[in-house]
Amino acid sequence: MRKIVVLGSTGSIGRQTLDIVRAFPDEFEVIGLAAGTNTKLLKEQVAEFQPAHVWSAAAGAEEMVTLPRVDQVMVALMGSVGLTPTLNALAAGKQVALSNKEPIVMAGKLIKDFEALYGGRVLPVDSEPSAIWQCLQGEDNEILRILITASGGPFRTTPLEDIENVTPEQALRHPTWKMGQKITIDSATLMNKAFEVIETHWLFSVPWERIEVVVHPQSTIHSMVEFADGSVKAQLGPPDMRLPIQYALFYPQRLPNSMIPRLDTSISHSLNFDPLEPNRYPCFSLAIEAARKGGTYPAVLSAADEVAVQAFLDGKIGYGGIHHLVEQTLSEHDSLPGETAEEVLQADAWASARAFELASG
Amino acid sequence: MRKIVVLGSTGSIGRQTLDIVRAFPDEFEVIGLAAGTNTKLLKEQVAEFQPAHVWSAAAGAEEMVTLPRVDQVMVALMGSVGLTPTLNALAAGKQVALSNKEPIVMAGKLIKDFEALYGGRVLPVDSEPSAIWQCLQGEDNEILRILITASGGPFRTTPLEDIENVTPEQALRHPTWKMGQKITIDSATLMNKAFEVIETHWLFSVPWERIEVVVHPQSTIHSMVEFADGSVKAQLGPPDMRLPIQYALFYPQRLPNSMIPRLDTSISHSLNFDPLEPNRYPCFSLAIEAARKGGTYPAVLSAADEVAVQAFLDGKIGYGGIHHLVEQTLSEHDSLPGETAEEVLQADAWASARAFELASG
Repeated sequence: MRKIVVLGSTGSIGRQTLDIVRAFPDEFEVIGLAAGTNTKLLKEQVAEFQPAHVWSAAAGAEEMVTLPRVDQVMVALMGSVGLTPTLNALAAGKQVALSNKEPIVMAGKLIKDFEALYGGRVLPVDSEPSAIWQCLQGEDNEILRILITASGGPFRTTPLEDIENVTPEQALRHPTWKMGQKITIDSATLMNKAFEVIETHWLFSVPWERIEVVVHPQSTIHSMVEFADGSVKAQLGPPDMRLPIQYALFYPQRLPNSMIPRLDTSISHSLNFDPLEPNRYPCFSLAIEAARKGGTYPAVLSAADEVAVQAFLDGKIGYGGIHHLVEQTLSEHDSLPGETAEEVLQADAWASARAFELASG
Repeated sequence: MRKIVVLGSTGSIGRQTLDIVRAFPDEFEVIGLAAGTNTKLLKEQVAEFQPAHVWSAAAGAEEMVTLPRVDQVMVALMGSVGLTPTLNALAAGKQVALSNKEPIVMAGKLIKDFEALYGGRVLPVDSEPSAIWQCLQGEDNEILRILITASGGPFRTTPLEDIENVTPEQALRHPTWKMGQKITIDSATLMNKAFEVIETHWLFSVPWERIEVVVHPQSTIHSMVEFADGSVKAQLGPPDMRLPIQYALFYPQRLPNSMIPRLDTSISHSLNFDPLEPNRYPCFSLAIEAARKGGTYPAVLSAADEVAVQAFLDGKIGYGGIHHLVEQTLSEHDSLPGETAEEVLQADAWASARAFELASG
């Protein structure tokens, strides 16, 4: 039995993680659940899964992940709050299924250092990094390119001059995936895709210049890997997060699960692939630049984006203001080496405060 | 150094095999070359690669493949003539890169029995089975479906009533691959795709009902595998046989080779996938039915098809006559168990003669 802790159990990924647990009752024992404000759903989950440990605010969850009897930790929190439990779980040698992108964006090097030092392991849950991970199975060969697919979001074909002024309602209409608000806006700006590039760089030790984004509106191919001989492998399927969640939990085993939708070959499919238009997605290049600079810039990127997206949703800034706000915050930052969690969290706190001031001013 | 014998060295696959050998001069020693009638090119190849053994008719090649110093045998012959050298090479424990489909269509079970008995191994060279093989790397998981892609050939959109009377010239215009005449006609009728289904069944031990053909006109995705959890892996790239040839020769290593074209992501691609129309390709169902019946039916299928395609190219029968001729020959056959090479070759000889009579009568 896998002894699992789920952080963020009432969010979209947390609930789908419990769907997988529910589908394989003999394979899992839920040791702990942690959630934020949705105490009603958390109570129902506790009644169903009878975990020994429960936290209704993420803070206390940091210790739960280090309990000796825990094997796997699902980190499905939102924002920078995922960093400390991720590091703690790795320091305790756990397998960390990481759905929350911010920890690895903020502190990719630190997370890899913790893996190497303490023997824990980060397993991707996001569908694109999971696709890359699946394509790399059994391939002890040089990687020429990682091709991460991007739906292009709701403004893929909107005239460029109209994009600055789109509304939150328009930006929340993601063409292929149903997700939380923050990640849906990040998918419209392609900030989310930049985060996946960063995730890929750290998780699979691939140089920045070998990671490419390809626009693929149908989100059927989740990502691809090109190997030394030019051969490309892709992983595909209907967009559904339960597959990558289950893959991370059972890796390297694949178990049948009738909940996961299958590729329907009884109908025609048309899959399109287009080069990325950098002008359409200014957040993308901004984010990659910050990531390549390193230090605490990626932590500032992540924090400023979180504030900017919320400010946009709250009507405090326009859609075009998101990248301006992130850019301004980055430009004011004095980077530290970012080699400790303290430095990273300090940069995160500074950036949140500064971006908030800028959004309000 | 890999010590290699190439049977059929002057044909399309043979020449491309020597392109790979030429690209990696420190990796190969050519022990033997064998070709049919193109003695001029064979002489040039002998001058370049200096093999110790040369045959200018395939018959004598049967012994060359068993020489103790040989590691790898590329069987790139045409038709049933590939069977005996394939079995001999396997009996001598060699790695057999099999480009020639007929041996495995005629005697799939026998070839697998020889592998198990003598420790030789058949490695696919065809692009679709190679794609499947690549997708299976590192996956010790149940296969739900193999999805073999088919370009659909030159008559994919031709009105059904016009297909019976197409000319050899029209049938030889393959939309995506440049190949020999026999295989190009087999690609138009989808007989070639049925042969790949048969190859897949035997090479990867996949039940018939789990192998599906998907029409994909661009031939960019070479095939796909769906695993127990519903995840699908695909292998893709520009249509070029040097990749699967090189993969079979260096397996599991992938070496950089600038001759092999790479997927161009600077341009837009549109990939289409449609269900197969059985009425459009009567040879396909006929072939699968013969393969599932087993015994010596598949040998008769292969031999009758070879005669029928030649008769069509010679103007003796129409395009629609190909499946009628194969069907008639199969219907007259009294199957043997097909457990020995003699039985298989006897059925092959009978079918060739009978199909020839039918085509001429």
